[in-house]
Amino acid sequence: MNKIKTSAPATVANVCCGFDVLGFAVDAPADEVILTLRNEPGLMVKRIEGDGGRLPLDPKKNTASVAIQSYLNQLKSSQGVEIELIKKLPLGSGMGSSAASAVAALVAINYLMNEPLSRKELIIHAMEAERIACGSAHADNVAPSLLGGFVLIREYHPLDVVNVPSPPELYCTLIHPHLELKTEDSRKVLRGSIALKDAVAQSGNIAALMIGLTQHDYDLIGRSLFDVIAEPVRSVFIPGFNDIRKKVIDAGALGFGISGSGPTVFALSKDEASAERAGNAAVAHFKEVNLPTDVYISKVNSEGAKIIS
Amino acid sequence: MNKIKTSAPATVANVCCGFDVLGFAVDAPADEVILTLRNEPGLMVKRIEGDGGRLPLDPKKNTASVAIQSYLNQLKSSQGVEIELIKKLPLGSGMGSSAASAVAALVAINYLMNEPLSRKELIIHAMEAERIACGSAHADNVAPSLLGGFVLIREYHPLDVVNVPSPPELYCTLIHPHLELKTEDSRKVLRGSIALKDAVAQSGNIAALMIGLTQHDYDLIGRSLFDVIAEPVRSVFIPGFNDIRKKVIDAGALGFGISGSGPTVFALSKDEASAERAGNAAVAHFKEVNLPTDVYISKVNSEGAKIIS
Repeated sequence: MNKIKTSAPATVANVCCGFDVLGFAVDAPADEVILTLRNEPGLMVKRIEGDGGRLPLDPKKNTASVAIQSYLNQLKSSQGVEIELIKKLPLGSGMGSSAASAVAALVAINYLMNEPLSRKELIIHAMEAERIACGSAHADNVAPSLLGGFVLIREYHPLDVVNVPSPPELYCTLIHPHLELKTEDSRKVLRGSIALKDAVAQSGNIAALMIGLTQHDYDLIGRSLFDVIAEPVRSVFIPGFNDIRKKVIDAGALGFGISGSGPTVFALSKDEASAERAGNAAVAHFKEVNLPTDVYISKVNSEGAKIIS
Repeated sequence: MNKIKTSAPATVANVCCGFDVLGFAVDAPADEVILTLRNEPGLMVKRIEGDGGRLPLDPKKNTASVAIQSYLNQLKSSQGVEIELIKKLPLGSGMGSSAASAVAALVAINYLMNEPLSRKELIIHAMEAERIACGSAHADNVAPSLLGGFVLIREYHPLDVVNVPSPPELYCTLIHPHLELKTEDSRKVLRGSIALKDAVAQSGNIAALMIGLTQHDYDLIGRSLFDVIAEPVRSVFIPGFNDIRKKVIDAGALGFGISGSGPTVFALSKDEASAERAGNAAVAHFKEVNLPTDVYISKVNSEGAKIIS
């Protein structure tokens, strides 16, 4: 076999109280990669679909090829590869767009090379792509996109990635207002130090969220989904953020927050109907301020990136 | 029935990465209270055994009577009560001594009043005793002493207390060096703000500890038991703290830290033999610096305070 098509899902990093340590994957949208082994060495990004011409074809700059190069370097392989990338995730949206492309590419090359590495072993190569895409080799999008479900990044040195069991019925609503925010800009507004009492509050919530997820306690999940660290400063980029929260929670969602560093916002709900009502409430809000939106409703994804054909 | 004897166990608050949000109870030691209903109104602390005369008999200052008074106020009861307190926990040790007395007293009065309140509803009254004893109405000792096991305090306003499932086999070694530290002094060394990166590290560890406990993953429990917030400043009060940690971990313990605000230190182990080796290692260390110690080894307690007779 020398050709394969894979997909890797969008992800929500941070997850309110999980700032910089937690992410989860959703069923949709997902980026797709078609990978073809070449007879001569070298990586080639043959075409990119769905990016409006904005992503680089240069294999040293494209996240899919950067991830594959890092992978091949570990294997000391000079295998040549041709990459076709079908973007389904909006760029710069806070839904893990760069991560999804890198992950789809890695799962593809690993399959074609007869899977010498495990999913967890692919994470560091996807992180190299994140370094190129946004300046920091973070794992809170790539790990859930690879592994599925909720994933905790306990530590980076050495990398310690923990799967977090979660309820089978958990729906995510992603609402992407058509604003573009760079991760770098969104990081700049964060302060280097925070009040001890805020750190304690965040600890209480992330710990409670872990109990809520593992014990399938929806009420506790809802009570824990607050962020006292990043959200208070980042939410200024999202017009009427607190109003949206109120409307989405009133519509029946368990919790609401910024996806990654925004501008996409997300809601978690315990059933599909609530997830849809939450989406409608947020869309109506953004319509009032003349911001077009895209809405994606799907289950929390449990398997991560997959082989399509 | 107008007389009862109860006991309430020692507790470890903070638990490394669980600074100000987590505590757990141990099987031993435990304070005991003998409560007798009186025919006339008023609270009386009749005798205290085991405190070397250091605890107040004044019912407005003793944690057992303060807790009972708060409880009776809620019930709008003028029931008179006579209290005998048998202290088994060392005072000012960081093992939740004031909490245990208050909890034993509350479980006793609630039983004699036909249990109008649940264990969780007793927490706020035990917190009033903590306010008297150490100036802040914290719950991370009283809640585990009442409920047993690991208990998370997610939030104080309103109080949200969460039971954390944990492995059936988990042993605690408490090593109490004969130093006395006041909680107030130990709090003074804490800074009002901390680095964002430390808050993130603490979040990763407390989240991972919750997964380790609920999933019975001993390795993960061990990897998570670190405190980057309070321990670096508080450990200066404990001679050779980092050496003790190394010796205790080398002896087979999963993790090691300061119990509450110290000076007692604790180790968690997955079997009794490791818990004993950890205790021996710590005792040997303190002997080198001429500090006498008391050591308590028991299982993590799963039921909390109990009726003795």
